[in-house]
Amino acid sequence: MIKVGIVGGTGYTGVELLRLLAQHPQVKLMAITSRKETGMPVAEMYPSLRGRVDLAFTDPASAPLAECDLVFFATPHGVAMAQAPELLAAGVKIIDLAADFRLKDTAEFERWYKMPHSCPHILAEAVYGLPEVNRDAIRKARVIGLPGCYPTSVQLGWLPVLDPKAVAAAGGDLVERTTLIADCKSGVSGAGRKAEVHTLLAEASDNFKAYGVTGHRHAPEIAQGLGAIAGKPVSLQFTPHLVPMIRGIHATLYARLTPAGARVDFQKLYEERFAGEPFVDVMPAGSTPETRSVRASNMVRIAVHRPAGSDLLIVLVVEDNLVKGASGQGVQVMNLMFGLPEDMGLTQLPVLP
Amino acid sequence: MIKVGIVGGTGYTGVELLRLLAQHPQVKLMAITSRKETGMPVAEMYPSLRGRVDLAFTDPASAPLAECDLVFFATPHGVAMAQAPELLAAGVKIIDLAADFRLKDTAEFERWYKMPHSCPHILAEAVYGLPEVNRDAIRKARVIGLPGCYPTSVQLGWLPVLDPKAVAAAGGDLVERTTLIADCKSGVSGAGRKAEVHTLLAEASDNFKAYGVTGHRHAPEIAQGLGAIAGKPVSLQFTPHLVPMIRGIHATLYARLTPAGARVDFQKLYEERFAGEPFVDVMPAGSTPETRSVRASNMVRIAVHRPAGSDLLIVLVVEDNLVKGASGQGVQVMNLMFGLPEDMGLTQLPVLP
Amino acid sequence: MIKVGIVGGTGYTGVELLRLLAQHPQVKLMAITSRKETGMPVAEMYPSLRGRVDLAFTDPASAPLAECDLVFFATPHGVAMAQAPELLAAGVKIIDLAADFRLKDTAEFERWYKMPHSCPHILAEAVYGLPEVNRDAIRKARVIGLPGCYPTSVQLGWLPVLDPKAVAAAGGDLVERTTLIADCKSGVSGAGRKAEVHTLLAEASDNFKAYGVTGHRHAPEIAQGLGAIAGKPVSLQFTPHLVPMIRGIHATLYARLTPAGARVDFQKLYEERFAGEPFVDVMPAGSTPETRSVRASNMVRIAVHRPAGSDLLIVLVVEDNLVKGASGQGVQVMNLMFGLPEDMGLTQLPVLP
Amino acid sequence: MIKVGIVGGTGYTGVELLRLLAQHPQVKLMAITSRKETGMPVAEMYPSLRGRVDLAFTDPASAPLAECDLVFFATPHGVAMAQAPELLAAGVKIIDLAADFRLKDTAEFERWYKMPHSCPHILAEAVYGLPEVNRDAIRKARVIGLPGCYPTSVQLGWLPVLDPKAVAAAGGDLVERTTLIADCKSGVSGAGRKAEVHTLLAEASDNFKAYGVTGHRHAPEIAQGLGAIAGKPVSLQFTPHLVPMIRGIHATLYARLTPAGARVDFQKLYEERFAGEPFVDVMPAGSTPETRSVRASNMVRIAVHRPAGSDLLIVLVVEDNLVKGASGQGVQVMNLMFGLPEDMGLTQLPVLP
Repeated sequence: MIKVGIVGGTGYTGVELLRLLAQHPQVKLMAITSRKETGMPVAEMYPSLRGRVDLAFTDPASAPLAECDLVFFATPHGVAMAQAPELLAAGVKIIDLAADFRLKDTAEFERWYKMPHSCPHILAEAVYGLPEVNRDAIRKARVIGLPGCYPTSVQLGWLPVLDPKAVAAAGGDLVERTTLIADCKSGVSGAGRKAEVHTLLAEASDNFKAYGVTGHRHAPEIAQGLGAIAGKPVSLQFTPHLVPMIRGIHATLYARLTPAGARVDFQKLYEERFAGEPFVDVMPAGSTPETRSVRASNMVRIAVHRPAGSDLLIVLVVEDNLVKGASGQGVQVMNLMFGLPEDMGLTQLPVLP
Repeated sequence: MIKVGIVGGTGYTGVELLRLLAQHPQVKLMAITSRKETGMPVAEMYPSLRGRVDLAFTDPASAPLAECDLVFFATPHGVAMAQAPELLAAGVKIIDLAADFRLKDTAEFERWYKMPHSCPHILAEAVYGLPEVNRDAIRKARVIGLPGCYPTSVQLGWLPVLDPKAVAAAGGDLVERTTLIADCKSGVSGAGRKAEVHTLLAEASDNFKAYGVTGHRHAPEIAQGLGAIAGKPVSLQFTPHLVPMIRGIHATLYARLTPAGARVDFQKLYEERFAGEPFVDVMPAGSTPETRSVRASNMVRIAVHRPAGSDLLIVLVVEDNLVKGASGQGVQVMNLMFGLPEDMGLTQLPVLP
Repeated sequence: MIKVGIVGGTGYTGVELLRLLAQHPQVKLMAITSRKETGMPVAEMYPSLRGRVDLAFTDPASAPLAECDLVFFATPHGVAMAQAPELLAAGVKIIDLAADFRLKDTAEFERWYKMPHSCPHILAEAVYGLPEVNRDAIRKARVIGLPGCYPTSVQLGWLPVLDPKAVAAAGGDLVERTTLIADCKSGVSGAGRKAEVHTLLAEASDNFKAYGVTGHRHAPEIAQGLGAIAGKPVSLQFTPHLVPMIRGIHATLYARLTPAGARVDFQKLYEERFAGEPFVDVMPAGSTPETRSVRASNMVRIAVHRPAGSDLLIVLVVEDNLVKGASGQGVQVMNLMFGLPEDMGLTQLPVLP
Repeated sequence: MIKVGIVGGTGYTGVELLRLLAQHPQVKLMAITSRKETGMPVAEMYPSLRGRVDLAFTDPASAPLAECDLVFFATPHGVAMAQAPELLAAGVKIIDLAADFRLKDTAEFERWYKMPHSCPHILAEAVYGLPEVNRDAIRKARVIGLPGCYPTSVQLGWLPVLDPKAVAAAGGDLVERTTLIADCKSGVSGAGRKAEVHTLLAEASDNFKAYGVTGHRHAPEIAQGLGAIAGKPVSLQFTPHLVPMIRGIHATLYARLTPAGARVDFQKLYEERFAGEPFVDVMPAGSTPETRSVRASNMVRIAVHRPAGSDLLIVLVVEDNLVKGASGQGVQVMNLMFGLPEDMGLTQLPVLP
């Protein structure tokens, strides 16, 4: 049994980790911390866990985190990097669901998150936790920066076309790497469980809007990830929108094909690239995936479109932002780090309707 | 033109007042106050008002309230009673959308609102602003305590059966006055525009729950109002529930018929009692009114049911909690107080779908 | 492995059965039929099942139902009773999710379902599939009439107070058996996956209404069930409402206490009655259960309230109408019929948020 | 008073026309037809109109349409063109809310709508009813093809950049006319009031999906409209998505700037182009308009973005698909055709929240 601790368990990624870990056959939950809710039984805040999670929130200072094999940080940005050195020294592995170990360039980190990075040496060692790209590195990692919810969907959507093998096979770039557009839509749980006016039901339901059009923290993360995949600089326009639903991200991706790209069979390319991936489903040609088809599951579904008379490649990607976009991906990464079957504890079917 | 001020305009009853008053042909908006948002143009917070409301929020201290003919208080409980004496002295009339002038018994007020009542003499003078019950008194009033959203629907629903004329005609009470049950359901805008976790879309949508089962502030207000209508004590069980929608209240009312009541034609009774009422619509026998049939309008729709083989009278009432349940009723009351046609500025049709 | 067939798998109870049975370790899905969709892969209609359910819909006539150990009917009323005799003769057990084997009185059945009952002898043998009441009989049954969604929540809510043991202990009825009120609220999936105007999102969202106020098919089923529990006639007012959400039922139950009942500790009574029940959770005193706390799970949560100064007992019950209210209960019953652990395949945690 | 008839009034554009026309001071409603609902009072189908619309649906054959000054067709495609010749001969003007008079190329019409065009000569005369583009022609028109909901938002969004005057002032095209992308999102009322499975609340809520990615009927209409504005061919990718809300369209428009375009002050260009337009609101730089800010009103709100370090122009447009996207635009056009103030009957403020 892996001994697991969770720091900061009162938010949505925290409760989703609890839901998944409580059903995982090889995990023993050791502690879940919350400064504000110290002493409150977890099941009192989340009655869905009654009878299945007996822990109470404990104070971060007194939690037995150093006795864990693995600690998840489901905290605001900045918390994981403050505690990482001590835990690593104690032999504890770390998966951070926030942004502390995502951006490799500390200047970029500081620009977007408005705080200095306190441990660049650990950042240098940290592995970006996207299994479809970094599976082997994840297996050996001590520290994981787990991808953001939007970045997971966008990177998986463009992974096959930017893959150097595919580029080599086509004799050159398949798409223009500098005019990519990711028009993304997310359910409101992506904003977390913070009391804010703009995500009240009376504000956000029966409503639709864009936000962060000219700058969102996930944009540099996506560009870094796509650049790492391609081995060359990639730039994109990332436009997030808020959808009146609880869970789900839908990424609508637009890329201009190069002449080399125009000759490629993208359906085949995607199916081959993701063959064997336990959590990526390339749908039949012509499909339009729905977010509910992955609700509460770790699956990503992708459809590829080539509109007639156009040089566009359109890729549609759906994920559950709290599962594959956060906590589920964390469990998948944990399984890799501890040598377990990659899908252990993650085989629940999506809930539809 | 009536010169109108609004104290506390950033909440839902405030913006709804603005929507209605900006379309009222006899109102000149003088000021809208907000301590927190002083200086912000109203249309910046509420883009729906762009080009139609040019005011900015002003500091309560410097707003020209004493120059108004009428001031609405769309504030937390306690604010209106603090400012009422000075405004009344300046000849300004007052409509309070909060609870300061609802409960006639100051001990009850203090019990439910956890603050002493600062001006019992004004409370004694204040008129409860339910036009269907108190129309004449409202016309002459200087201070109005506007009914709460739930109390409006419940009182209108039972008004005909408790009316002393109907009781006299039947030769006794029509229903048991001490076993009434009001099972009520409200959209989340009833909780106001406060940043709170439990009304976030991710918490409240795709969800349904009761709250305040054993005690809600509206219960004593309803009992007082029904008692005033009947001229005798009335007691009831009031159970509110939260519906995942923005606007709307649905009251499901249960009463046990007395033998005298069992002989009454309730469809006829309701139609006659509300004949001529501009904002109460008694639907045909067998109807089940929908909240959307009154969305964004000042109408209340009522249906009366007598299940076969039972001694129950079931009354269904729908209203828009922000209009007839708050701001629209305020405008209706204002029209009465200033001798205008009662429906002036309130004739917009419900928005369906 | 139990060989299972599903007749009529295109509706919501059908797809929910598939979701649950595909995750059940002791079930082999043999066939799923649909007259209209014969030949279509199940996963094409329900992409949530891609990669996990490989069956295609087969024509009812050619499906290998007689080779199954158990056949579920997720069909319109009338289908199960037509096919039951042949299947039973072949040694196949039957669980009907429709109403064919619920009402013991064929006259009542014919009155509410507008069709004659074709096999009263099988009806006489059929067991009503509510494990908390009929566990032993279910274990030995060949034919199950599975309770409706509303009836499950209402019967479980009143089970402890009507239980003859509790009545004997109190020295008489705890509540008035003829003035019960069940004010119930359901998500729209309860109406099934039929194309109808009134359950379109543009009609049913941001809306709330009652329906069937003076007569609903579940009313006689509830009265029969409560009567069977009590061993005496029970009558009630059942008022269903439509909530703008996908899943979930919330029952708000009102009962008048007798003098004997007024002395009972109901919190204790409920906790003791349901102690050991795997799928009934009696919440702490003062709780108001939310439907989302059981979303996508087989749990029922119950809270008991005794408002001060009143002779009312108020019971709040939440369930997922598609799980404990239909398909999950079907799997629970199947486990009992085949000697498996009662919660096998039903331990998924609720999905919150 | 203008005598107005409506053919096909049972759908959402029909009831929205009724809502607006019943509040219009210069309109007398003569008849509303429905083959299926002949004889049913309009207010029985739409209780929101009780007491305000006294008409019953009449059979199309017997309705006094020839006595009207104007007939709206809120019908399926093909109905208006069948009846237009006779009505025009009787001196009745026509506004078609369907597609019969939108596409000028009959081959295109037949390709997308799968029926021959029965009166090309009337089509040749018909004016495309977008006031911001064709105001003068509309004033003199006998037949109007009213724009679709998506096309209204997309054309208004790109009108200023394609305007020949702006192009001349900049010395050349401002944007690449052949790589435009319109990523659009619509509430489900856009699909009409047809009983269909995919728009049921249980299917479409808590869900998001694209549809018609490689071909939608509105794509040729938009291309035709933009081409007419520009006076040159324009081509675009149009990707519609379904949002779980009732009303509202959000268009996210992407265009690549030319070197000439890169020097333009787009905020100023948009503000100047739409100055004086009663129903187009150019928001301050940096805004992200919300669909609810125009809910139930005829307003369109537009925001223009120029992300740093990119050659993209991003335009965000919101409208209410049933008002400015259909019935409200119809009333605006009617006002122009009959010499009334353009905003008569259309000044209701948006409903927020």
